[in-house]
Amino acid sequence: MIPGDGIGQEVVAEGLKVLSAVLPQDVKLETKDYDFGAKRYHATGETLTDADLDALKKHDAILLGAIGDPSVPSGVLERGFLLKLRFAFDHHVNLRPSKLLPGVATPLAGEPQIDFVVVREGTEGPYTGNGGTIRKGTEHEVATEVSVNTAFGVERVVRDAFARAQARPRKKLALIHKNNVLTFAGHLWTNIFNKVAEEFPEVTTEYMHVDAATIYLVTQPERFDVIVTDNLFGDIITDLAAAVSGGIGVAASGNINPSGEFPSMFEPVHGSAPDIAGQGKADPTATVLSVALLLRHLGYEAEAARIDEAVSADLSERTGKPARSTSEIGDALAVRVAG
Amino acid sequence: MIPGDGIGQEVVAEGLKVLSAVLPQDVKLETKDYDFGAKRYHATGETLTDADLDALKKHDAILLGAIGDPSVPSGVLERGFLLKLRFAFDHHVNLRPSKLLPGVATPLAGEPQIDFVVVREGTEGPYTGNGGTIRKGTEHEVATEVSVNTAFGVERVVRDAFARAQARPRKKLALIHKNNVLTFAGHLWTNIFNKVAEEFPEVTTEYMHVDAATIYLVTQPERFDVIVTDNLFGDIITDLAAAVSGGIGVAASGNINPSGEFPSMFEPVHGSAPDIAGQGKADPTATVLSVALLLRHLGYEAEAARIDEAVSADLSERTGKPARSTSEIGDALAVRVAG
Ligand SMILES: CC(C)[C@H](C(=O)O)[C@@H](O)C(=O)O
Ligand SMILES: CC(C)[C@H](C(=O)O)[C@@H](O)C(=O)O
Repeated sequence: MIPGDGIGQEVVAEGLKVLSAVLPQDVKLETKDYDFGAKRYHATGETLTDADLDALKKHDAILLGAIGDPSVPSGVLERGFLLKLRFAFDHHVNLRPSKLLPGVATPLAGEPQIDFVVVREGTEGPYTGNGGTIRKGTEHEVATEVSVNTAFGVERVVRDAFARAQARPRKKLALIHKNNVLTFAGHLWTNIFNKVAEEFPEVTTEYMHVDAATIYLVTQPERFDVIVTDNLFGDIITDLAAAVSGGIGVAASGNINPSGEFPSMFEPVHGSAPDIAGQGKADPTATVLSVALLLRHLGYEAEAARIDEAVSADLSERTGKPARSTSEIGDALAVRVAG
Repeated sequence: MIPGDGIGQEVVAEGLKVLSAVLPQDVKLETKDYDFGAKRYHATGETLTDADLDALKKHDAILLGAIGDPSVPSGVLERGFLLKLRFAFDHHVNLRPSKLLPGVATPLAGEPQIDFVVVREGTEGPYTGNGGTIRKGTEHEVATEVSVNTAFGVERVVRDAFARAQARPRKKLALIHKNNVLTFAGHLWTNIFNKVAEEFPEVTTEYMHVDAATIYLVTQPERFDVIVTDNLFGDIITDLAAAVSGGIGVAASGNINPSGEFPSMFEPVHGSAPDIAGQGKADPTATVLSVALLLRHLGYEAEAARIDEAVSADLSERTGKPARSTSEIGDALAVRVAG
């Protein structure tokens, strides 16, 4: 457990509550808390050490709340903790499901049908930290960012996405990129996508530029089933996807290492929300849904499904009721999954 | 005039119709048609030659319909024509206003107030064509894309955006980037933004990550007044902005060289839409609004305002009426601006 900063502490507590409630009696749950985040950074200057990674490596899975605080310069915890962990544990499949559940508010008009999953590449693209700055702070400063894309890295995530599409009733997969401008990376992605497609003749494929995809996400979200995309485009469209399918209060994600060589990490898409931290106002639903992804990843499909159902039921009964606190929502979900 | 491909031909004809109708008698309009696009590429292999650039250079402004056709491999016309022209003529201010006009449909629920303008950088970022591929087509292929950002390039567009914000009633400017991950480019953008802000004490500023911005664009679009952002983020968020503020049928843009050293180019945000080309189904409104941007750029403010008003009136009277053809809409707008 990495509760982290801000509301991370509160939502992880509820995630654990629901996890404990859903597990069968004979499954012994062992957890350990890690203190990563702003507090430790201020105290020690450390974000994530080699010893930390060795310790984390021993767990079956990681549940993270949120990392980030305005007191830490932008980028320090993101690059020094979040991205470092994703890269160290080779979390190349970043799974982000979007499902608009009945009774949940959406900013879109009408009654859109939203049920898709984004498979975002997690270890390449513009996230590698390649790049640099010369003549910093002068009028001649030049700063570069290098997007790195490899056949190895693209093929494994594209293959994962095809397998997920194949396993879903609609069997549709969209590749999102910007191959008309980012032609080097774009051609690599497109060629591998088309090559792997031959192995999955039942999957219907389409290609879409990332700019056009943002239009479809608000005008025809029902069009999507599975999406595969690069690290940066995935970052952008999954926030938009979360916004249209009930908000980041209910958006879960998994940073997955499919081989199991390193533990996978599960976390809500939202951040640490320092403005509401410590007030019991945060909605723990996204964390609870992340626990479901964690259970599914470890093979506890029935338990994961029970959590999903509990969340659906809870959300569908919210309209018109007074707002509940973080722990009240957690309690309600724990009761539902246990019952 | 560069009608270009697909519906480009049809919408530019209407743009010219409205332009001719709105100009005072004593202004002599001289136009010349250029045949860039898929047809010329197939016939000659050329997209945009040095001689073409010399010829284009002599005009006061350029009106473009759309370039692109499925018969041409992705990237050839984009890199070989559209981007080549933006770079050759140093169109560093890519201006994209978003205004939800009364009576216009939006995919958002409720009655959102949308009236902002995006100032997208047009000559740097991941659009420079820097990057490359090694071991192409093999399992060891590596493809890179380099985002290039210079103090010179960032400062001039940030300054332009501040000046635009200063001139608007709300005087608000948001910088959109991803400075917690793209730290090299992000720090350059953020530092220059903060430095230029000191010269514009009346302008209220905020910073927002691009992923968060997509959420606000659908949940709180009224929050935005002027946005300044990099080339790729600008590409993405302006399509989303167009979608929420009436669709790409009404989204106009200007590729502006503020110094006037080279002619600026004005074009609808939409593409060539080959599926509906030649059927009189395209809405020429985005092109007509691009003509208004062109006129405003050349100092014809009153005429630009007349076009904006004509479009507002036309859009507000559409509901419940049968669909009109491309030329019927153009005729109606020409009558309104002349009246
Ligand atoms: C905090 C940041 C590093 C992260 C990302 O960009 O991946 C976040 O936006 C996310 O989507 O998980
Ligand atoms: C066609 C393409 C090169 C272009 C861009 O990415 O700039 C388009 O999407 C736009 O927004 O004008």
